[in-house]
Amino acid sequence: MSGRGQIFVLSGPPGAGKSSVAARVRRDLPELAYSVSLSTRQPRPGEQDGVDYYFVSRPEFERRIEAGEIAEHVEIFGNLYGTSQKVLDRALDQGQDLFLDTDVNGAEALRQRFADGVFIFLLPPSRRVLEERLRGRNTEDEAQVRDRLERVRYELSKAEHYTHLVVNDDLDRAVAEVEAIIVASRRRTERHRKLLAEFQAS
Amino acid sequence: MSGRGQIFVLSGPPGAGKSSVAARVRRDLPELAYSVSLSTRQPRPGEQDGVDYYFVSRPEFERRIEAGEIAEHVEIFGNLYGTSQKVLDRALDQGQDLFLDTDVNGAEALRQRFADGVFIFLLPPSRRVLEERLRGRNTEDEAQVRDRLERVRYELSKAEHYTHLVVNDDLDRAVAEVEAIIVASRRRTERHRKLLAEFQAS
Repeated sequence: MSGRGQIFVLSGPPGAGKSSVAARVRRDLPELAYSVSLSTRQPRPGEQDGVDYYFVSRPEFERRIEAGEIAEHVEIFGNLYGTSQKVLDRALDQGQDLFLDTDVNGAEALRQRFADGVFIFLLPPSRRVLEERLRGRNTEDEAQVRDRLERVRYELSKAEHYTHLVVNDDLDRAVAEVEAIIVASRRRTERHRKLLAEFQAS
Repeated sequence: MSGRGQIFVLSGPPGAGKSSVAARVRRDLPELAYSVSLSTRQPRPGEQDGVDYYFVSRPEFERRIEAGEIAEHVEIFGNLYGTSQKVLDRALDQGQDLFLDTDVNGAEALRQRFADGVFIFLLPPSRRVLEERLRGRNTEDEAQVRDRLERVRYELSKAEHYTHLVVNDDLDRAVAEVEAIIVASRRRTERHRKLLAEFQAS
């Protein structure tokens, strides 16, 4: 691997299983750097600061936006989520590939900065399964479920801007497909100009 | 999978291990259609007509070129090799993906007809290993080895036109990477417009 690293972005509507897929990909491909996102929301049970998110206060998050330290950020249900510009630049400059999961707005911001990035949209098996998954969480009331379904509609409307679509009807297969997309992208000829030149010269 | 199929082309200089990789990919991904090439050369020990190649006479091959039945053909060391146009069209129209292995000239002809195809170039681990492999075959005299090395130089000069490069320093890994490239390409968004439209409409 030579030259600058590449970014891989995974998005998907709530209920598509993005977190499960992302966790497996990170475990299977430990050489991928990933940027832990910042968030102002409250940690859920089991979530760890610095692992799931950097949990920061809203004033601190806003200070970083002002200081230009945030590459992309979005507000969802009153909470801010974002990615540190410094973390991205440092990894890519070292030739590391980066794996990020963001919502569609975060992905859009990243796409404008990284036109050669790989953007993967995770789809649930069907709309019906998605609704069942959202209701099955039992952590939200009906109004919140409706808000989430509205969010699903919005995220789906952005799916066509992604380079790849993966259907999560089977977690193992979805993970394997996301990993195949990453492996394949690393074999793209433009990433190996140097290797090729060496061969041709020898 | 919807719409027209896609072609995947594997090339590589003599000694890169293209035949071994192609055989494994065909075994692992049986849903890939593949077009057995036509050849006018003599079968090697163990090669079967209709499996390794369709072995045809030179007059018959030339008749098919004249009739426009050959999508791409090349002459190597006095033998003609080619791909049947009819076989390609039939499979692609049925939505089947096609896996072909051709030399660099065959790939060039296919690239002009299938701009959205995936073209994978297989590299040996090093130039030195390649020379050892070519000499190790013991089926050719020194002049033939020199001819083959000349061929290697020519094929390498075309590698940058391929979409992907895979280094065959480990057969299992090379096979896995070629398969990842195929799987990843099938997840490209433009192949799933219909699926997406269904989701967005629901």
